[in-house]
Amino acid sequence: MTLRTGREGRGPAMNEPADIISALQGCGTVLISVHKNPDGDALGSQLGLMMALEKAGKKVVAHNLDPVPEIYRFLPGSGRISTGPRVNGTFDVFLVLDADPLRTGLFTGAWPARTLINIDHHVTNRAEWPITWLDPNATATGEMIYRLVNGLGIPMDKNMALCLYTAIFTDTGSFRYSNTTPESMRIAATLIEAGADPWLVTENVYESYSYKRINLLGKVLAGIERSPDGRIAWVLVTDELYRLTGTTAEDTDNFVNFVRSIKGVEVAVLFRQTGAEQYKISLRAKGRVDLSGLAMTLGGGGHKNAAGGVLDGTFPSVREKVIAAVGRELDAQFGKKAVPAP
Amino acid sequence: MTLRTGREGRGPAMNEPADIISALQGCGTVLISVHKNPDGDALGSQLGLMMALEKAGKKVVAHNLDPVPEIYRFLPGSGRISTGPRVNGTFDVFLVLDADPLRTGLFTGAWPARTLINIDHHVTNRAEWPITWLDPNATATGEMIYRLVNGLGIPMDKNMALCLYTAIFTDTGSFRYSNTTPESMRIAATLIEAGADPWLVTENVYESYSYKRINLLGKVLAGIERSPDGRIAWVLVTDELYRLTGTTAEDTDNFVNFVRSIKGVEVAVLFRQTGAEQYKISLRAKGRVDLSGLAMTLGGGGHKNAAGGVLDGTFPSVREKVIAAVGRELDAQFGKKAVPAP
Repeated sequence: MTLRTGREGRGPAMNEPADIISALQGCGTVLISVHKNPDGDALGSQLGLMMALEKAGKKVVAHNLDPVPEIYRFLPGSGRISTGPRVNGTFDVFLVLDADPLRTGLFTGAWPARTLINIDHHVTNRAEWPITWLDPNATATGEMIYRLVNGLGIPMDKNMALCLYTAIFTDTGSFRYSNTTPESMRIAATLIEAGADPWLVTENVYESYSYKRINLLGKVLAGIERSPDGRIAWVLVTDELYRLTGTTAEDTDNFVNFVRSIKGVEVAVLFRQTGAEQYKISLRAKGRVDLSGLAMTLGGGGHKNAAGGVLDGTFPSVREKVIAAVGRELDAQFGKKAVPAP
Repeated sequence: MTLRTGREGRGPAMNEPADIISALQGCGTVLISVHKNPDGDALGSQLGLMMALEKAGKKVVAHNLDPVPEIYRFLPGSGRISTGPRVNGTFDVFLVLDADPLRTGLFTGAWPARTLINIDHHVTNRAEWPITWLDPNATATGEMIYRLVNGLGIPMDKNMALCLYTAIFTDTGSFRYSNTTPESMRIAATLIEAGADPWLVTENVYESYSYKRINLLGKVLAGIERSPDGRIAWVLVTDELYRLTGTTAEDTDNFVNFVRSIKGVEVAVLFRQTGAEQYKISLRAKGRVDLSGLAMTLGGGGHKNAAGGVLDGTFPSVREKVIAAVGRELDAQFGKKAVPAP
């Protein structure tokens, strides 16, 4: 049995580790958790593995800090995920999926199991647990769980297939993003054959916007503005728009991507009012410009394709500060461009 | 050599017909055309096959009635597609892809070739040409062209792969629709391995909206309305909105899908002003209700998931007529439902 420790976990793509297989085969009770604000990959992986291990006779508890977002409540077993800062009892194995264990936001004291296993595809995972399976070449954690379930010799059923398909589908933006690989598409093909229904997933994930949210989207996009050179475009969500449409900040999820989808736009900005004179800023790049240097200006964090922060001031003053900073960054990285995009 | 005639073409899924292989192997000049208002499947299939046949030493002309829409001009070879109602000269083979030959809108007189070949996956194709390869089980015509190119023994290069990937990608709505099959995903995986870049296709097809179009989308969605039971929702595009945003009817493509994506909405309606007191109507269903019975009411055509037409009158009168007709159809098919959706 090879114990894979921290730094060694950063190796190349690999198959499911033997130590995870044997730990799961030898145990009786398992707790599975994922990160805060769980997404489709986290939840699909968690539920797919839960059902697989139950099929193998294990007693499984699925528990997260945050509740399942409405669009993922169609996933079989999603009603069984308990929530809150901790779980009572101890378990033979505690599995954390799709995140560094600290990102679960659970158990500020001791972890509730003898054997701790972390499975993730994010390159930023610090791999601090003794058994860490980290595969940055995997499209989604769901792809790794697919391989693990196969490695455990558990036959894939329709519900497991639906969960793992959703995991891969959502983490690739329905096979649109650059992380889409031939391997992920072949696994998805196998999952459809095992019973996953592509349209069922689409309808729940992409065709279940609330009426008020579409109404807010319209009112927000109706006020879109851009820089004279067309490389920066932005929208503003005010308290008044929330009131008019009966929405909250949660309903603005993904809005910035509509702005980014405009031809010629290199950086999209979403301003959201968070106080009388306070605005939360989300920046998204199209993949050419590097936003990581902007974090300080915005008083927040950032990486290459996304940055954000919170600034105090009137909207015109906040807007000017942000757009000027983004403009300087574009000029520094690409030089000036005067011709507006179509 | 088996000549596949009209009705016999409606059989089950089949591999590339031997008569098409031998006709293409034996010929010197080929004309390839697709339907009016060409989409990603039509153009990707046309260009992929053009490049493959050129690789096999054929002289190929690609010609359509309508120009290539801007979002597809990234496809290699798209600049070589000539347009207009006819082409000069005659050819050994005339290939019509992705449509009934009449839907090309070309050659009101005689067809410009001895050998006529029609390749399509639409079940509505009337299969009137002696050599018709019709496979309604194919996800996209691009999938059939992939099989044909393999059948011809022509090695897939990067540009061909990009075109055929785009064909399959767009006809499945990026693998979202119910026509997504394991076979189509495995072919897509092979095309990525041959050099197709998923993000390049995504960026051009889904991330290249014009600024004015996003602005129009916002103004249109800001005025969304729905029936009291939440099952019908609609938006209106007026001449004034076109003027305000500098857009045309072409920019409203796909808008009705935003309305359809709302939870609880069974039928989405797009009203577009086409005269002082005239409105063009597009209806989309979510897959449960059958719209084919509504065509007469709307003075247009229709099938299960879509119907449309043009009505004269003020907007309130047109809206009332359409919404009442859709409401009656919903009641007839499902019974009344009083509770509004979220």
